Amino acid sequence: MTPGQQSLVEQARARFGERVAVTDAADVEPWLTDWRGRWHGRSAAIIQPSSTEEVATIVALASELHVPLVPQGGNSSMVGGSTPPPDGSALILSLRRMNQVRSIDRGSMRAVAEAGVILQSLHEAALAQGMRFPLTLGARGSATVGGLISTNAGGTQVLRFGPMRALVDGIEAVLPDGTIHHGLTGLKKDNRGYSLDQLLVGAEGTLGIVAAARLKLVPAIHARAVAWLGLASPQKALDTLRALEAGTDRIEGFEILPQESLQAALDHIPGTRAPLDSGHLWHVLVEATADCADAEPPAEQLARLLAPLVERGLVENATISATEAQAEAFWRIRDSLSEAERVAFGPATQHDISVAVENMPLFLAEAAAEVERAFPGTSASGFGHLGDGNIHFHVRAGTRGGPDWLEQEGYAVQRLVDDLVTAAGGSISAEHGIGVMKKEELERLQPDRVRHLRAIKAALDPNAIMNPGKLV
Amino acid sequence: MTPGQQSLVEQARARFGERVAVTDAADVEPWLTDWRGRWHGRSAAIIQPSSTEEVATIVALASELHVPLVPQGGNSSMVGGSTPPPDGSALILSLRRMNQVRSIDRGSMRAVAEAGVILQSLHEAALAQGMRFPLTLGARGSATVGGLISTNAGGTQVLRFGPMRALVDGIEAVLPDGTIHHGLTGLKKDNRGYSLDQLLVGAEGTLGIVAAARLKLVPAIHARAVAWLGLASPQKALDTLRALEAGTDRIEGFEILPQESLQAALDHIPGTRAPLDSGHLWHVLVEATADCADAEPPAEQLARLLAPLVERGLVENATISATEAQAEAFWRIRDSLSEAERVAFGPATQHDISVAVENMPLFLAEAAAEVERAFPGTSASGFGHLGDGNIHFHVRAGTRGGPDWLEQEGYAVQRLVDDLVTAAGGSISAEHGIGVMKKEELERLQPDRVRHLRAIKAALDPNAIMNPGKLV
Repeated sequence: MTPGQQSLVEQARARFGERVAVTDAADVEPWLTDWRGRWHGRSAAIIQPSSTEEVATIVALASELHVPLVPQGGNSSMVGGSTPPPDGSALILSLRRMNQVRSIDRGSMRAVAEAGVILQSLHEAALAQGMRFPLTLGARGSATVGGLISTNAGGTQVLRFGPMRALVDGIEAVLPDGTIHHGLTGLKKDNRGYSLDQLLVGAEGTLGIVAAARLKLVPAIHARAVAWLGLASPQKALDTLRALEAGTDRIEGFEILPQESLQAALDHIPGTRAPLDSGHLWHVLVEATADCADAEPPAEQLARLLAPLVERGLVENATISATEAQAEAFWRIRDSLSEAERVAFGPATQHDISVAVENMPLFLAEAAAEVERAFPGTSASGFGHLGDGNIHFHVRAGTRGGPDWLEQEGYAVQRLVDDLVTAAGGSISAEHGIGVMKKEELERLQPDRVRHLRAIKAALDPNAIMNPGKLV
Repeated sequence: MTPGQQSLVEQARARFGERVAVTDAADVEPWLTDWRGRWHGRSAAIIQPSSTEEVATIVALASELHVPLVPQGGNSSMVGGSTPPPDGSALILSLRRMNQVRSIDRGSMRAVAEAGVILQSLHEAALAQGMRFPLTLGARGSATVGGLISTNAGGTQVLRFGPMRALVDGIEAVLPDGTIHHGLTGLKKDNRGYSLDQLLVGAEGTLGIVAAARLKLVPAIHARAVAWLGLASPQKALDTLRALEAGTDRIEGFEILPQESLQAALDHIPGTRAPLDSGHLWHVLVEATADCADAEPPAEQLARLLAPLVERGLVENATISATEAQAEAFWRIRDSLSEAERVAFGPATQHDISVAVENMPLFLAEAAAEVERAFPGTSASGFGHLGDGNIHFHVRAGTRGGPDWLEQEGYAVQRLVDDLVTAAGGSISAEHGIGVMKKEELERLQPDRVRHLRAIKAALDPNAIMNPGKLV
C-alpha cells in the first residue's frame, strides 16, 4: 500500500468503522480479475461505503491524496472496465453495500435504487408492485444499477424501451471533487444547463461515482407470445419488422440468426429442436407482449399481423408459441448461440457492433464478403438485435487456423471489422463500452472524439482519480 | 469592427461569397434585441453560413481570431439567450440559411432537419408524410430546430412525449475548435463514451453550434378530444391525472388553472365563455388523442375514464368537446391566460419553475402563502403543466404597488420564489433556460453546479468564443 492509500484507508476507517475497508488479500483477490479472466489487476484494498455521504467523503480524500479509485458493481464488464490497473496504484471502490431499493412509486412509475442493487433484485421489487424495469441481459444476477448506468447497458428490450440512457430519470452521484450531484429530484422539466445526469450515463466511472438512480418503470407483462419466422434475407427480416411496427407498438424483441447458427444450436445444445419443419436461410424470433387483460392477446395479434406477410411471401413460414414453455424454448435457442457456435465452429473473433438499422442488411453481406476475401478460409456471420442495428458479428477461423488463430490474427481481423464499421457510420461498441479493451482502437479511429472526451474528463477530474486507464 | 472581426468577415466572404456576411447596420439591427425588447446588444455583422462545412470553417476562424460568436435561430429566447453582448465584441452566427428538412423516413420514423428549420415547417413536413413531430409551443412560427435543441424546449406535449432532449436522436454540430461532430448516424446503440449529443441539448449554444439533428416522429393525430374539468384542488387534479394515466397512455395535455385565472380570461378575452355552468375553485384541461381509426375514439375514452371519477367526487363536473371548434375554444382560454391576467391584475412577476409532480400541489399552496406573507398585499398563484410539475407561477402586485412595482420589488420577489423552489428540490428554469436572465441567480443558488458546468465549458471552448455571457 502506498502512503496515500494507507492514509485513505485509515481515515475512512476512523470515520466509518473498520468494515468500510477490506484489506485482507484473500477477500480482495476475487475482484482483481474480470469475470472472463482476461484482465488481471492489483489493488491493496476494497473500500465499501454504505451511503452517498460516505462515498463523498472517500472521494474527497482520494482527490486530496491523489489515490485513484476503480468503481465496481457486479464486475461483469465485457471490456475490462472495472478491473484495477496492474501497477496497484488504485483502490477498488465497491458499491455493494449500497444495495437498497429506496422507493417504488406506482403513481409516477418510478423506482429509486442505489448503485449496488442487482438488476434481478430490481426486477423482483418492481414486479412485487405490478410493474417491471424493462431492461434485462444475461448478467442480470450480478450486474448492478451503477454499472448498468455507467455502461449504458442494452440487452434484448432496447427495441421498445431504449437502452439504460432512456430509462434513467435522474442520478445521485459523487463527482471527482467530492461534491454530491443531487439528481433524484424527479423533475420532468429542468433547464439549468448541461445535463450531468446524461453525462454520467455511459461514462464508465471516469467522471464520478453513480450512487443511486431514479429509474423508469412500465406495467408488468400480462401476457407474451414469441413467434419464429423463416425468411430469405436480413432485408426481408427488416421489412417484416417495419410491417409489424406499423401495426403495433408492442414488439419487444426482434432477433435474427442465419441457418448455420440455428443448426449449430440444434447440433450442440441438448433439448433444442427446430421451430419450423421447413428450411430457410435466415430466421427471426419476435416477441410481443400485452400489459393488461383487455388488450388483444399477443399471440392473436402476432397471428393477425403476420398472416398478410406470409401471404405476400415476405415471410416464408412462421409459428407462434402456444405455451410459455414453447416461448422459452425459442428464446433458449437464441440465448445459446454463442456457446453453440463455439463448439460447432471453433475459435472466432466477436464484434459488438452497430450500424443504422436500415443499413444492417447491406452491411452484414458486404462486411462478411470483405472479411472472407481478406482472410481466405474464414467465414463471417452475425446474429442478434436486428431491430436495434446491433449484431454480434463473428469471424470464424474456418480452414485458416487452429486453436492459436485468435492470438495470431485476431487483432488484424478486429481492425478490419472496426474499419468497415466505422466507414459505414457505425459504432465499434454498441453495448459493451470501451473500457480497457477498445481504448486504443477508439483513439485510432476517432482521434477528434477522444480528444473532446479527454478534455471533459480532465475538466471534471483534474487529479485523474476516477477509473484510471479506462475509456479515455 | 475589431481587426479580428474584419478578418473573419473578409476570409469568410473570400471563401463563401459576399452573402455569407451581412454588415449593413439596418439589416443587422433587428437581431440585436430579443423579441420582448428586454435585452439590447451590439454586433457589427451577421454571419450566415449555408452548410455545416461552412459553419466549421467559420468557427475555426473565430477560434483562431478569438472572435466570439452568438448563435441565433428564431431569436425567440425568453431569457436573453441569443442577444449579442452590449460591448460589440461578438458577431452573430445565424443558422437561417440552413433551413432544409434533409429527410423524413417512415420506416424508422425519423426526420433529419437543419438547425434553421422553423418548427412549424417541420410540423408541416412531417404531416405531409402522415406523421408528426410531437413538440409544440407558442413561438412555433419562428423558433428553429437549433434553438429548440439548445434550450431543450418543452411545450404542451411533454407529458406524453418528453421535452426536446427525449426527441433528439442525434446531432450534427460544430465544436468550438471547428471540428464537426457527426451524430446523425441513426445508431440505436452506441457506447463510445460520453454522449456529446446529450451534452449539446440545453447547452444554449455555449459548447458548439448545432447544425442539424435527427428527430423522432410519431404517427399523425387521427382524432383528439379535449375535456374541461372542475375540481376542488390541485391535489385532486393530480389524483385525476394518475387515475387517467392508469387507464390510457394517450393523455397528451393536462393543464391546470385556478378560478381567478379563468375569470380573468372570461372577463377580458373576447369570445371566451365558461366551459362549465357550475363554479369550481380549480379547473383542468385534458387532451387525449388517437393515432388511428380503429383505436377507441378519444372523446369516448375520456367519457369512459372520467365517469367513475365524477361519481366518486374526485372531479366535480366535466364536459368533453363535441367538436374541433369546441376543443379549440377550450385551448384558447388556456393560451390566453398570460394576456388575460396582465389586463385583469396588472403587474406581476412570472416564474418558470418546476418541482416533482407529486410535490406540486403542496408547493403551490405553501409558496403562495409564503410570498403573500413576505409581501403583504400581493397575491400569488399559478397555472400550467401540472402533469409535468411545471407551473407558471405569478406574483401579482395587488394592493402593494403601482406600475413601477416590478422595478421596485421584482428582484426581491424573484429571490424568494427561487429560494422556495430550490428548497423544494425544484428548478428555477423549467423550460426557458438560463441565458443572461438567470445566470447570476443560478450561481447564487448552486455554486457547485455552476463550477462543474464552467469546467466543462472551459474544456471544450478554451478561447471562450461560444455565446459569451450566457448560462455559465
